[in-house]
Amino acid sequence: MDYQAQDKDAAFLLFDVFHADESWAQIEEFSDLTPDLARAVLAESGRVASQVLAPLNEIGDTHGCEWNDGEVTTPPGFKEGFSELTQGGWLGLSGNPAFGGQGMPKSLGCLVEEMFWAANSSLYLYGTLTVGACLCLDAHGSAEQKKTYLEKLYSGEWTGAMALTEAHSGTDLGIMRTKAEPQADGSYSITGTKIFITGGEHDLADNIVHLTLARIPDGPAGSKGISLFIVPKYLPNADGSLGERNTMGSGSLEHKMGIRGSATSVINYDGAKGFLLGEEHQGLAGMFTMMNYERLSVGLQGLGSADLAYQLSARYARDRIQGRSVTGPQNPDAAADSILVHPDVRRMLLTQRAYAEGCRAFALYVGMQLDEAKYNNNERAGRISELLTPVVKAFLTDKGLDGAVMGQQVLGGHGFIKEWGLEQIVRDARIGQIYEGANGIQALDLVGRKIMRDGGGLMLELLEDMKATDVDEAYKGELIEACDRLARSTQSIVARGKNDPHLPGAVSVDYLDMVGMTMCAWVWALMASRAPDDDFGVAKKATARYFFDRLLPKTLGLERSIEAEADAVMEMPQALFSPA
Amino acid sequence: MDYQAQDKDAAFLLFDVFHADESWAQIEEFSDLTPDLARAVLAESGRVASQVLAPLNEIGDTHGCEWNDGEVTTPPGFKEGFSELTQGGWLGLSGNPAFGGQGMPKSLGCLVEEMFWAANSSLYLYGTLTVGACLCLDAHGSAEQKKTYLEKLYSGEWTGAMALTEAHSGTDLGIMRTKAEPQADGSYSITGTKIFITGGEHDLADNIVHLTLARIPDGPAGSKGISLFIVPKYLPNADGSLGERNTMGSGSLEHKMGIRGSATSVINYDGAKGFLLGEEHQGLAGMFTMMNYERLSVGLQGLGSADLAYQLSARYARDRIQGRSVTGPQNPDAAADSILVHPDVRRMLLTQRAYAEGCRAFALYVGMQLDEAKYNNNERAGRISELLTPVVKAFLTDKGLDGAVMGQQVLGGHGFIKEWGLEQIVRDARIGQIYEGANGIQALDLVGRKIMRDGGGLMLELLEDMKATDVDEAYKGELIEACDRLARSTQSIVARGKNDPHLPGAVSVDYLDMVGMTMCAWVWALMASRAPDDDFGVAKKATARYFFDRLLPKTLGLERSIEAEADAVMEMPQALFSPA
Repeated sequence: MDYQAQDKDAAFLLFDVFHADESWAQIEEFSDLTPDLARAVLAESGRVASQVLAPLNEIGDTHGCEWNDGEVTTPPGFKEGFSELTQGGWLGLSGNPAFGGQGMPKSLGCLVEEMFWAANSSLYLYGTLTVGACLCLDAHGSAEQKKTYLEKLYSGEWTGAMALTEAHSGTDLGIMRTKAEPQADGSYSITGTKIFITGGEHDLADNIVHLTLARIPDGPAGSKGISLFIVPKYLPNADGSLGERNTMGSGSLEHKMGIRGSATSVINYDGAKGFLLGEEHQGLAGMFTMMNYERLSVGLQGLGSADLAYQLSARYARDRIQGRSVTGPQNPDAAADSILVHPDVRRMLLTQRAYAEGCRAFALYVGMQLDEAKYNNNERAGRISELLTPVVKAFLTDKGLDGAVMGQQVLGGHGFIKEWGLEQIVRDARIGQIYEGANGIQALDLVGRKIMRDGGGLMLELLEDMKATDVDEAYKGELIEACDRLARSTQSIVARGKNDPHLPGAVSVDYLDMVGMTMCAWVWALMASRAPDDDFGVAKKATARYFFDRLLPKTLGLERSIEAEADAVMEMPQALFSPA
Repeated sequence: MDYQAQDKDAAFLLFDVFHADESWAQIEEFSDLTPDLARAVLAESGRVASQVLAPLNEIGDTHGCEWNDGEVTTPPGFKEGFSELTQGGWLGLSGNPAFGGQGMPKSLGCLVEEMFWAANSSLYLYGTLTVGACLCLDAHGSAEQKKTYLEKLYSGEWTGAMALTEAHSGTDLGIMRTKAEPQADGSYSITGTKIFITGGEHDLADNIVHLTLARIPDGPAGSKGISLFIVPKYLPNADGSLGERNTMGSGSLEHKMGIRGSATSVINYDGAKGFLLGEEHQGLAGMFTMMNYERLSVGLQGLGSADLAYQLSARYARDRIQGRSVTGPQNPDAAADSILVHPDVRRMLLTQRAYAEGCRAFALYVGMQLDEAKYNNNERAGRISELLTPVVKAFLTDKGLDGAVMGQQVLGGHGFIKEWGLEQIVRDARIGQIYEGANGIQALDLVGRKIMRDGGGLMLELLEDMKATDVDEAYKGELIEACDRLARSTQSIVARGKNDPHLPGAVSVDYLDMVGMTMCAWVWALMASRAPDDDFGVAKKATARYFFDRLLPKTLGLERSIEAEADAVMEMPQALFSPA
């Protein structure tokens, strides 16, 4: 599928909206990172995305992956495409320079990742799992573990996988059964079965490093007895070369709705050799250190899908002629006008675009908070990133599906036909709402943990900051109204949630949606206020106007819905959920 | 997939909510139709749906249809399943008794159709296209044409297909090119290519009757020069037996996102013999006489998908244990509680259910208006059915996709895996929003034609009737608030639409959504007020409460969005829709 990287919008956001160059200048690690260098990085990642990854997107879906006696073959071309991705050093873009990473800021990484996701979600999944494994190893590994694994992973010579889910244990990891028995040599013997393991087996790399959660016998029950292990497909020798094959592997591939070029395995561990990563029984905490990054990345997957769908449907709309403008023919020499003359086609395209560009700016803002926290020891930025990351993950993946569905609708009947690509985007985007913590879990994290824990304090502070932002008068009133609305809902939830433990979970998804909408209102006010006086700026302002007039009003209904008590969902007796 | 027909809810709606028996008693044609007979019909259609059609649903998707040199083979079992459906007389349920139809009311037919759609959308499509062809033939055919075709179609010995779309001509039928040249024998020679022809070629019946739109040379340009033709695959002899093969047929099958058991063909006409149906150049009007019925039916497809998804996800939720209730373990003997303890899981299930049951009642109400119009010559009922049919089509198919997506979310990772069925429902439901007039076109029909034509008069009358309905005090205030809100939006659109021709199209989709929500509010108030004092009634009341507290608030945002001027969508210059 044709994909055009949005490096112009990316640079506008980095330098004109968020002044990332000024932030970078204050961080020693980024002293060499000039705007020109950042632009060059974006141009090159855009080239890899559009010219290397995008051409493999459709074949990945039609061909899928093949399983044969534990070996998995990826779709034709994936090996070469992945090799080009890794040889460009892209997996180590934000990685630790001490082990071969490039140490670039997450803000830049966000924009790069979006391109890879948009161009080919299935192929980039092998990469993002590797990046995630690196984050975890870098944070919790011993010096020797880092030395053994990080360089090979940053370079893509080896890849990573995360093994959490079991058939009976998904969201509730505390009931997992995979066990890890201590061995005399200090290693552990891992036995059990994991499911839904993305990139758990494939032919793209020499080795696959499974970060695996398991239970050490006689440890505490529940989630406090779970430990994290490095379980490599091939055991590395002391010199880093590959040793013997570990006793674990792919039992089968899942048959999925989408991301069919990504191999999702059942992984069986038959007394496999594993090495403790971090402390015993601290496995969940270990996994969670990388969660903010991974969730941000999955949010970017949703954004990538939304943007790709927008591009394909906008091109279709430009070329498709059908019907006449209600004000008379606009293209009298042809049999019909472009469907861009029809207000409802414009509504669909503007909706897609308003969310795609709004979400890009929102994600970048959160990425910058991660950088501030990590490199400037800015504790408040860290808390903001923790507060908003579940929103990025859920809101962006929701908009990924919505945008793909709307793009499909622009194409009419062609949207339902495989050859046109939109239906694949819908199927691929759908997973983003489910994995890496289903979106309902993100909402519960936002409300049940973060908002309730500090009485909404940080959110209320953030809203005051947003209201005080210098934006054009045209947007100021509506932005303040939106922030005040979210503040009221925040206070209402906190007050009622203290008395009714069901309340936070009952309204959490509506609340998360309202936070996402309000963040979009803020970034749209910012973008429109900073937009240049050219076509790019005209489009920004028109899209901002559309967002405020036609999309933001949704928050009126969300506020009212959040006012309902938990009874509205708790009243139905459990037995009556089954059909009468 | 396991499917349980909702005949209990159907009977509740027919007799306790809408008193259909009282209506039937006043119509001569239905004098024999007792509630007991209607219940028996529902029980038998439920049996066919759940025991004959549902078991073929998954295989239809996994196997799909095969094309070989113009011949199409349907999935294994479809032939036997379709045969059982047709031998039960179900295709002629509401058909003309003079030609073998059973003359049952559309109200009953709605409830039966929903079951067939829910159980197997792909298989039932061959049926519904046949029912549609019968409606068209019955309304416009000569006595001889009715005699030749209707009985064979009602019995399912032959099936029907509708050939409208061409590659360059979808919504805009006026630019179609397929031509029909008059022949000396009074027939026409049809030449051209049609695409997206559902049931255009298959192996389920002896003959396929294509109702084909084409242009007679030298006729008026545009949509006023289109005529309707009967183009049978095999030309019938005078005695009704099959004669020679017509020179038309399937050039290929489309590769679709869903409804893969339904064969969608490109149909090539190579001087095929066609017979004029109705008057020359009146083809679009002829097609439109059956549109209200067909669109209602496609709405029921959406409802069926929503209900099937609800059933599967409610069962999963009951059986799946994961995590603990926030108020402490509810199932202390097990490793975890049912996920039904979690407020957000309940929210998803209640949302699905509130829309499924609300949409069922709404569709039935419209079906009853069709009966009133047809059998009691009730002109106002006819106008109400015309006003609301585009809402049923679009709102119910939107809720079909939303419900399927939400059902999938309840299953978490399993929702993305083929074996669990939900992902198929998503793919199957998606087409409902696209075909039979894309949902944006339905909204334009509602606002641009119907609301603007009578200045919103009928809608405002209907809203007054709804406000005056006798419902429990608990719902009265919210119902009146919702009706008043819709009345305000109606008046606002009419007033502004007179001055700005772009306005109706700019806000039409939001307006249609608001009409659907308000109709649901009305039927939920009715259902809850008429609910019995048992478990069935408890569930109705809890779902009604949920609808009013958590879903209806959406209309606040819709009202505000509709207040925006058309500029919000028209301002963006056409050239700037393409990515920057």
